[in-house]
Amino acid sequence: MLDQIDLSVALDKAEYRAQISQFQLRLYALQQAMLEARVPVIVVFEGWAGTAKARTIGVMVRRLDPRGLRVHSITPPRTSEMQYPWLYRFWQKIPSYGRMAIFDRSWYREMLAERTASDADPQRWRVRCENAAAFERHLSNDGTVILKLWLHISEREQAHRFKSILKDPLTAHQVTGEDRRQHRHYHAYADAVEDMIARTSTSYAPWHVIPATNKYYARVAVMQAVIAGIEDRLGRKATPVADDVRDAGLDDASAAFRRQRRSMPNGLTSPLPQPPVVPSAIPFEPMRTEVAHILRRVDLTLTLDEKSYGKQVKQLQAQLYRIGLQLYHKRRPAVLVFEGWDAAGKGGTIQRLTAEIDPRSYVVHTIAAPEGEDKIHHYLYRFWRRLPPRGQFAIFDRSWYGRVLVERVEGFARPDEWSRAYAEINEFERQLIDFGAVVCKFWLHFSPEEQLRRFEARKTVPYKAWKLTDEDWRNRDKWPLYEEAVDEMLLRTSTPAAPWTVVEAEDKRFARIKVLRTVVQRFEAELGKVEL
Amino acid sequence: MLDQIDLSVALDKAEYRAQISQFQLRLYALQQAMLEARVPVIVVFEGWAGTAKARTIGVMVRRLDPRGLRVHSITPPRTSEMQYPWLYRFWQKIPSYGRMAIFDRSWYREMLAERTASDADPQRWRVRCENAAAFERHLSNDGTVILKLWLHISEREQAHRFKSILKDPLTAHQVTGEDRRQHRHYHAYADAVEDMIARTSTSYAPWHVIPATNKYYARVAVMQAVIAGIEDRLGRKATPVADDVRDAGLDDASAAFRRQRRSMPNGLTSPLPQPPVVPSAIPFEPMRTEVAHILRRVDLTLTLDEKSYGKQVKQLQAQLYRIGLQLYHKRRPAVLVFEGWDAAGKGGTIQRLTAEIDPRSYVVHTIAAPEGEDKIHHYLYRFWRRLPPRGQFAIFDRSWYGRVLVERVEGFARPDEWSRAYAEINEFERQLIDFGAVVCKFWLHFSPEEQLRRFEARKTVPYKAWKLTDEDWRNRDKWPLYEEAVDEMLLRTSTPAAPWTVVEAEDKRFARIKVLRTVVQRFEAELGKVEL
Repeated sequence: MLDQIDLSVALDKAEYRAQISQFQLRLYALQQAMLEARVPVIVVFEGWAGTAKARTIGVMVRRLDPRGLRVHSITPPRTSEMQYPWLYRFWQKIPSYGRMAIFDRSWYREMLAERTASDADPQRWRVRCENAAAFERHLSNDGTVILKLWLHISEREQAHRFKSILKDPLTAHQVTGEDRRQHRHYHAYADAVEDMIARTSTSYAPWHVIPATNKYYARVAVMQAVIAGIEDRLGRKATPVADDVRDAGLDDASAAFRRQRRSMPNGLTSPLPQPPVVPSAIPFEPMRTEVAHILRRVDLTLTLDEKSYGKQVKQLQAQLYRIGLQLYHKRRPAVLVFEGWDAAGKGGTIQRLTAEIDPRSYVVHTIAAPEGEDKIHHYLYRFWRRLPPRGQFAIFDRSWYGRVLVERVEGFARPDEWSRAYAEINEFERQLIDFGAVVCKFWLHFSPEEQLRRFEARKTVPYKAWKLTDEDWRNRDKWPLYEEAVDEMLLRTSTPAAPWTVVEAEDKRFARIKVLRTVVQRFEAELGKVEL
Repeated sequence: MLDQIDLSVALDKAEYRAQISQFQLRLYALQQAMLEARVPVIVVFEGWAGTAKARTIGVMVRRLDPRGLRVHSITPPRTSEMQYPWLYRFWQKIPSYGRMAIFDRSWYREMLAERTASDADPQRWRVRCENAAAFERHLSNDGTVILKLWLHISEREQAHRFKSILKDPLTAHQVTGEDRRQHRHYHAYADAVEDMIARTSTSYAPWHVIPATNKYYARVAVMQAVIAGIEDRLGRKATPVADDVRDAGLDDASAAFRRQRRSMPNGLTSPLPQPPVVPSAIPFEPMRTEVAHILRRVDLTLTLDEKSYGKQVKQLQAQLYRIGLQLYHKRRPAVLVFEGWDAAGKGGTIQRLTAEIDPRSYVVHTIAAPEGEDKIHHYLYRFWRRLPPRGQFAIFDRSWYGRVLVERVEGFARPDEWSRAYAEINEFERQLIDFGAVVCKFWLHFSPEEQLRRFEARKTVPYKAWKLTDEDWRNRDKWPLYEEAVDEMLLRTSTPAAPWTVVEAEDKRFARIKVLRTVVQRFEAELGKVEL
């Protein structure tokens, strides 16, 4: 889903200038609070070659007290480092209590290099992801704030940047052989990054994807992610010091460093000092940084005329019939997930999808609010119960993603519950895939205007009127909240083995054909070309 | 370390009778509290064939309201169940909110069967352990209390039980082919169990090893582990209802069931009712159940005369010299851990161990209270920094086990910190082993009387007097607390790849030879017989 991230977001220089110094002061105030509270912070910068990670780090630390931080630039391991377990050199670099370690590349560099090598070993990858998660968990349990940033640009933008770096003889050396290799294999590398994010984004050490085409936007987004992460742990919103108290503040921080230095040799058990209250001066409105704005950029002008639709739907249904037989023969289960706005056409699409499939080989599960047994168990229980056996399809008209959609938006799940659910869902789907399941997920998207037209039509068409409830109208009011939840869901739960497909559903015919075609292509790739 | 568990512990029938009904009432009171608080509970019974798991479960549930619990007897998967991912059938069986699911065998049955099969795949085992941990984590995050019990008997006791079961034609069918296979491969199976416990004992779903030679002891120990686990989650000590309020209590529980049933169909978000305060009547003293009593049974009469000592020490040192060379040639690192009572002879033993080893190839790290950099980082930091490179030895005179010994006993680490540390240490050592390290761990054990003799001797021998500090005398007072911590450490961190060796150190010569011999045998097994 990395390819779906909105890379066009930008800030102009004036806006950037107005904002960045506020953020710098704010981070400076937090640095002081971290020190007082003895909370260590790790910030990991990963991202495509050419995203100016070093300069971004420079902007981030400009106003900080340099005694409280350390920037580690991570290269491939040296011969001497290869004499130890691979995480050895990173353990050397963890920050002490109250300090910040910034990694320009990190343990993920080695992991990604291996994962994209020609002799990549999937088991080794799995173990490395486990090791990295354990490393971060150990530090987090000890109180460390861990923030991981992926600076993202498109293949095209990377080509453009390499070209301009190479043109200047003073910077040409910056593009290494490793960078060129990365660019040549951009898509394989992007797959690896998606898998890495899915496996190692945890509630205690989340990944943030930062659109980095525009450097000003990227810098502000990085600052926001770091500030929000630290504030979250410190349990309160620190506000930056105002200009007029800034110098006093600087002195305070230096004093804090001196105090901490003096107090270090004392007993292990000395109580942690309370973080100081930083004077509130400049109002702070967090900006949405990590959301991909995927939905906003879906092309809703796509349509299909009735004649081509009729022809294609028949063809695809014939293929689906054969895919059903093949699934049965190969004893693979299939899981198809349909999510989308009310009235986006999930039901009609599922009907076209199953039209020619042997009815004994699929079950459609319509998921509404949980009732009975489902209501008094873990939210994944109802879906484990409804898994398809080998050789069959389970089609979910709404699904476990309700946890991060309706339950999030309506407050049925607490923030800690739904934010934990991304990792839980990824683990759940990974188990299905390990078992051999083919997993396809669709989000049917259209405009609020089209939804209104369909609601109105339902009101007037008697045989469709039952479909429209008061709740549908209420949900419409929460469109922006749902949009945010959907964007985050698409970003956090799209993995190479269980990708999301966003379907342009303003036109029903176009949507149905896109879904059927995607399913056919996906199964052909998984099961082999169907030639019965 | 399973072989070190004290299986001689017993209760006589009268004691058992006096205790068990109190525990049953206590659990009954808790069942009611669970229901009110809507906390689900899973109790897993695993253990050797012949440990009467079913009858133990019978005793446990005797006084409970049967509507609040379900016992699942787990057999190998049926053909229909093999059509789904392996955890599918266990998800079907999770308890609903407020209820208890008891597993007579569980998902670990399948895991152990595979792990001990002739075609066992270590990668598959690793993935299964991961899956099991994720399953339990998902449920625990949702509020489920998970307790896992391993009922333990010796190989000899198992043989004895099979014999008596087989003698009676009415029970002979109970010993299955699978049971016989388990018995034939008792030691391989015990290794698998140790590894399973090390990998899947987590703070949210701990394993408890229950000595089960004496059925009365086992039943009481099971009750205690279950009661303590549930009380821990409910955040208070429930006390059992007294006889005179028992019947009223029974009615209360039924009413609670009825109330819960009525309230189920209501909103997802209804606030959880507070657990009721159960009348306090019978005082309750928890018994130590899961501690292995390993130290109490060490044979401290073992000695070695000076002549055999002199001869053997020379031989072993010559072998150690060659092992050092071989380690270097094979580019494997080695980690040797020495823990033990003050004055138990760690230093002298290490001296004999390294006497003939090339001094460039080893470093001895003496670990006292952390200072400087080590004090202001995660406790594992100082050990990651001191790892040996490939081809060399690192010898630790005290080690990371301080976290679960001195830091636990002295309160330098909080209970949540040191109890989390067992899993952290196992993960740490697993990374060393994955990297190719040979890991040996020694606990040098002697009696408090011998310690006193050595302390007194140190006082009078001028060149030894520096070794004795006031702290040594203070530590002596805490002998029973340390004993408990050591027992638990030995049990929870001994794994097939990184086993603990308990050394009988009442006699210094005996201890030194045992350590040197164990090291030689271990390295020969890992590196191949030394014939330079």
